Formats: sequence, structure tokens, C-alpha cells
Amino acid sequence: MADKKKLVSEITSMDVDFAQWYTDIVKKAEMIDYSSVKGCVIMRPYAQALWENIQKTLDGMFKETGHENVAMPIFIPESLLLKEADHVEGFAPECAWVTHGGSEKLEERLCVRPTSETLFCEHYAKIVRSWRDLPKLYNQWCSVVRWEKTTRPFLRSREFWWQEGHTVHATEEEAREETMRMLNTYATFCEDYLAIPVLKGQKTDKERFAGAEDTYTIEAMMHDGKALQSGTSHYFGDGFARAFNMQFTDKNNTLQYMYQTSWGVSTRLIGAIIMTHGDNEGLVLPPKIAPFQLVVIPVAAHKPGVIDKATELYEMLKQAGIRTKIDVTDNSPGWKFAEYEMKGFPLRLEVGPRDIENGQCVLVRRDNREKTVVKFEDLTTVVPKLLDEVQQALFDKALKNREEHTYVAHSIEDMKNILKEHTGFVKSMWCGDLACEEKVKEETGMPSRCMPFEQEHLDDVCPICGKPAKKMIVWGIAY
Amino acid sequence: MADKKKLVSEITSMDVDFAQWYTDIVKKAEMIDYSSVKGCVIMRPYAQALWENIQKTLDGMFKETGHENVAMPIFIPESLLLKEADHVEGFAPECAWVTHGGSEKLEERLCVRPTSETLFCEHYAKIVRSWRDLPKLYNQWCSVVRWEKTTRPFLRSREFWWQEGHTVHATEEEAREETMRMLNTYATFCEDYLAIPVLKGQKTDKERFAGAEDTYTIEAMMHDGKALQSGTSHYFGDGFARAFNMQFTDKNNTLQYMYQTSWGVSTRLIGAIIMTHGDNEGLVLPPKIAPFQLVVIPVAAHKPGVIDKATELYEMLKQAGIRTKIDVTDNSPGWKFAEYEMKGFPLRLEVGPRDIENGQCVLVRRDNREKTVVKFEDLTTVVPKLLDEVQQALFDKALKNREEHTYVAHSIEDMKNILKEHTGFVKSMWCGDLACEEKVKEETGMPSRCMPFEQEHLDDVCPICGKPAKKMIVWGIAY
Repeated sequence: MADKKKLVSEITSMDVDFAQWYTDIVKKAEMIDYSSVKGCVIMRPYAQALWENIQKTLDGMFKETGHENVAMPIFIPESLLLKEADHVEGFAPECAWVTHGGSEKLEERLCVRPTSETLFCEHYAKIVRSWRDLPKLYNQWCSVVRWEKTTRPFLRSREFWWQEGHTVHATEEEAREETMRMLNTYATFCEDYLAIPVLKGQKTDKERFAGAEDTYTIEAMMHDGKALQSGTSHYFGDGFARAFNMQFTDKNNTLQYMYQTSWGVSTRLIGAIIMTHGDNEGLVLPPKIAPFQLVVIPVAAHKPGVIDKATELYEMLKQAGIRTKIDVTDNSPGWKFAEYEMKGFPLRLEVGPRDIENGQCVLVRRDNREKTVVKFEDLTTVVPKLLDEVQQALFDKALKNREEHTYVAHSIEDMKNILKEHTGFVKSMWCGDLACEEKVKEETGMPSRCMPFEQEHLDDVCPICGKPAKKMIVWGIAY
Repeated sequence: MADKKKLVSEITSMDVDFAQWYTDIVKKAEMIDYSSVKGCVIMRPYAQALWENIQKTLDGMFKETGHENVAMPIFIPESLLLKEADHVEGFAPECAWVTHGGSEKLEERLCVRPTSETLFCEHYAKIVRSWRDLPKLYNQWCSVVRWEKTTRPFLRSREFWWQEGHTVHATEEEAREETMRMLNTYATFCEDYLAIPVLKGQKTDKERFAGAEDTYTIEAMMHDGKALQSGTSHYFGDGFARAFNMQFTDKNNTLQYMYQTSWGVSTRLIGAIIMTHGDNEGLVLPPKIAPFQLVVIPVAAHKPGVIDKATELYEMLKQAGIRTKIDVTDNSPGWKFAEYEMKGFPLRLEVGPRDIENGQCVLVRRDNREKTVVKFEDLTTVVPKLLDEVQQALFDKALKNREEHTYVAHSIEDMKNILKEHTGFVKSMWCGDLACEEKVKEETGMPSRCMPFEQEHLDDVCPICGKPAKKMIVWGIAY
């Protein structure tokens, strides 16, 4: 096991330095490499395979609810970006600008898309004529560019991969339904597939998307108690429609403006998986989304029959629909154990000469190291059951972590006291005024996360200003 | 059928103006819309669905042969692009340059990737240390940007979507095998899925990729006799490896340079499908790759039971794994027939009151309008059979077109005479000299397409200069 210690010793303990632990994992599990463009990363095969599983599942959910994929141009002319005032104010400071094509200077600068509302607006204005053309439910998978000052793999980078849904509707009601439908789709996906419990709610005016009327969010809590905004869904009303002249004739032959939504999740979700489930040995991946669910490792592989049996079990599990890998390299079993723990494979199957004599093998869970001895003939029934158990256990553990790190504050003093010893979600009432929100940020360092849909009555008054409370709000330091 | 005539009359006949016919189809079948960025297009849902089917099939073929997907950054620093002299000479004139991030001028210009060899080289130089790390078989799906002067949807645009495979190997032999494996994968895909016969061969030095040692190509012939380069596979030798210092220690512990390949196909394949199979009524899509393989159209839909029966058949076909759509809008059947012909659905199913009485429906093939009356109970066996027949018929027709438009020339005079009346592939012998290749281009307008792997002996000497012939070569005007 000397090998194993060596590999693991290269990861900083998460209790010592969570940020460094994260960076170590991302590198050691071969998810990311840095490129020579500052702030832009390379998605290595293991991260890309994880992202493709996320894509495949979400894309299926989008298509089931009637959405279609398109591909919009990578560039936005400056004049197009300028059309909606709030939107441009939000994004212009972080645009990457193309000024030359070949050796010629362009007549107008082009922005590498930071988000594509403006392109969709221009397209919808052209292709939608009548109520019969509505709704349009489009989505695209692509990368976008935002010229951030400080970056971190998956969490904040100058280029990141995402999907952006953009829809237009004949009525406010339909558009609001869509906004909620997609937020709920994200929440279901995070909880059921990524095993990450999320808090659903509405962003305050201060925190909402540039140009949106209402922004809804799912907020996850990482292992260290910090929040991660993991997906957002925006209701735009007809603000963009008026700026881009997006009109249609309704059933009464009257010209109306369209109502619009947009919604997105990104490779940030990979960061969420790492920081929710990972431990000091490396990644821990939820079985439903892991590139591989199980690795077969022959023990004493040089002994006759071991490789053959391992290969037979590998084929059997693959046949049964389990995403399985086998490692028959000449690395030591100890090295392999550490390697696949680092990569967060949910299950490991060990099989050696004595196991074969007894017609059995050993399954080891990544999440809690629990070992199960299984007869060969029971393997294809036990493995799916164990994978389900791992999936559920990860969710339960993450939920427990969130519950243990959720606090109630009745005053700013309370908040400060909580933060002295803890990091987590801090619930309080709120009057709805920007001034109070800013005061909390200034005095405690916590921005608001959201006004949860599931409200509780904690106090009658806003603990900041003493005026009547309107809402319960959740505060928290975020990535 | 007034409706139908109206819709169809908006398409220019391909015999009158093939280029305009193409543009009409691309617009009317709702594949492409133009954006406000000149030369950049919007992939609308129907084109995107077709591209996703292409992606899914090819991606499966890549993964079966051991390839892994990654995602590289969208930007290439100018200094990185400059490292390989031939490569930069080929691509620098058509780079889009980012000069500003937000309000700040960048210290170094960044090129929006026109192709990613340089990024892969930099990455491989970092992550490959020993022969144990080889081969690396990476691929990425993304869009790239080339600042072209004249553009055409799918065929040549400033942004296009593609996959680019980039591999490194320990030996020349392995890298050459990979180059051929991927060219053959492309050829198989085009012939078996897109029903497009392709000519496999090697590009001349003049036509090879910037920086490659050898470029191999698959050349398709469009309906009008013009050629379309539909996929390329490049062998780089160790040229980039030397420029980027990509070394590894071999089994004898000696430092060696890696051998490299790259290969790509793009949304150009959609242009190939349109121009190979389309007709004056619109698109004709090969069943294996069509977003929908069949549309169910109720006739006299207001009569009792018609919609119900149509829906039942639709569900039955979907259950049987046929990609099926049903159109129950209140448009007339004639309008619907024209609409789905325009969109190239391989089969149409018509069902009306009299059919229902007789327990049958009518299937109409898109490619040859052949009608088949089918008993309901035979539908799920007849449809797959008919789809196979359509697939084969499209291939056969395209192959016949190619054979009928392939000519032999024994002199430049021959070539000129052929071109007076025909467009197609012109075969001749060639001495291998650039001067002769340039002379043919100058006097006939035809560049070389490739030196086919399947050689024929047409003459002993080069018909241009009279020196001994080395190879048979194919010339042709191309998109």
C-alpha cells in the first residue's frame, strides 16, 4: 500500500485547506488542464465524459418537454448587444472583443458571446409572425466567454460550457410557467442524478440577471458550507421584446409583444459534484452520472485463471448495462485501488485466486468503504442494488450536511456570531429593501442567496431595520 | 393542391439554377437562418437535429475505436499559432482576432480557433511522458472560425461546426494506420448512413493541409457533377512534434518525438446530403440519418375515428423504434404533403376513412413517390423494410450519377472538350509535377481532387507534359 499512500499524500486534506483540496482533485483526477490562455481550461476526457452524461440526461429532459436544439453564432455585433440597456450594462465589461478578421479591421466590433439572449431575440423577431408560431422552445449547448478577473476550474473561468434555453410565448402566464418548469427540471436533475439537494427560490432584485424581470435559482451547499448557485431560470416579461421589436399577431389579429424566458446550467455542476461528495481520497461520483460505475480489479493477476475470471465478470456486468471498466495493467492492486478511489468510481470489484475457489468476489463502495462478498451468480442483481444505495446515501449525506449548516438569525449580531464559528445558509426575515440587503453584505460579508419558495415565519419584523418583514431570505457566502 | 403548388413554386428548379435551388431549399426547409454577423449562420432545429444524428453515429464509431472526447479552449494565443511555420501560413490570413477583454487591451492577440492542432500539441507535450502514455486518441466537437470572403450555408461559412480528432503515437506506422482508419471510418459513415458514395484518395502536395505531411480525402459528387471534399485525414509525421517539443521516453529509455494525425468532418456533410439527394420538391433525407423517418397524415381528419386511428398508428410505429411524427394541425393534406416532401421525410403514411374501413393505410416513398397499400397489422414489418429500400435506392442513384459523370481524359484538349458539355470527375494520368497540376487548373479551371487509392492505368505518360506517368489523378470543379 506504499503506492496508495504516495498518490493520496499529494492531495491536501480538505480540513486543512478546502480550496487547495479542490484544486488538487481537479488536477489529480485528470479532469482539467490549464492552457496557455489565462483563465481558459482544457476539459480532459474524464471531465468531458461526466459532462456528456449530464448533457445526455438533461437534453432528454428538455426534449421530453418539447424543446428543440439550435446553434446560434458565436459572435454578437456590438450594436446588437447594445439594444437592451440593462443587459449590456451587465455584460459589456466582461466581453472579449474581436476587432480584426484576417488582416482587416472590422467595421464593427464583435463580442464573443457571453450569453445569447440578443441573438435569440433577433432570430425570434424574424421567424415568429403569428400566435400559431408560438411558443418557440429553443435550447443550445455551447461554450460562452466572460472575461473574469479571477478564475477557478469549473466554478468561474473565462470560457465555460453550458446550455442556454431561450423561449418565447404568447402570454405572460405561459412564460412564467416555462420559467418554473425549467427551474423544477434543474432541481429534479440535481437531486435525482447528481445527488445534490438544492434550495429553490427567487433572487432579490440586486442579484437578478441583467435584463430579467425575475430570476429564480437553485442553490446547493458545498461540503465546506459555502453556497453554489447551480442553475438559474429567468422570466423577462416583454422587456427584450420591446427592445428588439419582437411582435406577433394574436388570435384577434392584434399585434402583441412576446413574453420571454431563459435558463441555463453549466460545467459548474461538475464543481458542485466535486465539492458536495468528494473526500480526502478524491472524487466521489454519483452512480447515475459517473462515466464508469464499477471497476474490476484482478488481485494476484499473475495466478492462472484470475485475468480470465475478471474479464468474464467485466463482460457480464457490461452486458447487464453497468458502465464497467477493467484494469489489467501491471500496476499493483494497491495503486489501482487508490487510482479509482481518486477518480470516484462508485464501486470496485476485487477478485483473486481464493475468491475464485469460493465462487465469489468482493465489492467495495467508494462512499463508505463497505465491503460486500458476492457470489458470482448474484453479481448482476447485487450491483444495481448497491449502486442505488450509494446514490441514495450520497444524497442523504449531502442533505444532512446542509441541515447541519443551516442557521436562523434574528439580528445582524446573530449573523456575525454564527459566522464566527460556522459557514452555511443563514435564514432570516427581510423587509425587501435593498438598503438592508446591502447592510448585511457589508457587515457580515454574506450576499443573499435567494428567497426560498418554502417560506417560514421566523419573526414579524426585518431584523436589520425593524420594519415589517415581507419574506424569509437565505444568506450565505458563495463560490 | 393549390397550397402545394404555392409552396413548391417558391423553389427554383435545380435544372435552371442549381445554386439558387440549393439556397431556396436551405431556407424553405428551415435549416438555416442568416444572422446579423455576415457569413455566420443559425442552425435551425431541423438542421441541428440532422447534425445531432450525424454526431451521435460518428461519435459512437470514434468511441468504438478507442477515442475519447475532450474540450479545448476556444482561443489560441498568437505566439502558439506561430510555432509551426506552414500551419500559420495556411491559417493566419483567415483568423478572427480578439484584441480586448472588457475594456482592457490584451498583451497578446488571441485567435478564435480555426482548427486546434496547436492547442492539442501544447497539451500533449505536457501530459505525455513515456511510451506508456501513448497513443492518445482525442477528439472534440465544437465550432471553428475562418474569416472567409465568400460564404455559403453549410459549404463555407465563417463559423462552422465540426469534429476534429487529434492523435499522437509512438511510431510512424501506428500514426499512419490511424490516419487510414479514420479516413475509412468517414467513408463507411458517408456510404452506409448518408447514402453518399465517396472516392477515397490522397491529396497532392499543392492541396494538402497546412502543416501536414500527407492529406487523405473522401470526395463526393453532387447532383450537378461538382465535387465536394467531405472529410479529410492528415498524417503529420513528427513535424509539429519538433516545433512543439513533443517528446516521450520509449521502451529503451530514449527520448523520441511523437507521430501525429488529425482528421475532421463538418456540417458540410449536411450540404452534401442536400446536393446529393435533393430534388425539385425539396430535401430527400437518407432514412438512417433523418430526424424523422415517417410522418403520419390523417386524411379527412374531421371524420370520426380518423385522428384516433392515425394516433394509434403513430404510437405503434414509435414503439417499433421508427422516428415518427404525426401532423394533426388543420392545414390541408395537400399542404402537409408538400411540407414533408420539402423536409425530405423518407416515408409518408396517409390514412383516411375508407382506409380505416379496409384495415389499411398508404405509404408513399419520398424518393420515387411509389405508393404501397399496407394492412395495419403489417405496418411494423413493412416500414423498416421500405426504409431500408429507400436508403439503398438513394445510394444506388448517387452512385449511378457519379458513374455517369466520370470521364477519362488523355490530354488537356480532352479535358476542355469534356467540360464544354459536362461537369464531373475527370480521370487522367499525371507525372506528379506541380507545374502540370497548375497548368490543368489554369487551362481548364479544374483543381485536382485526389489520387484515388483504386488506381487505373490509363496511359503510360502524363497527358500534360509527356513525361512518364506516376499516378492516376482525378480532377474536378468543387464547392
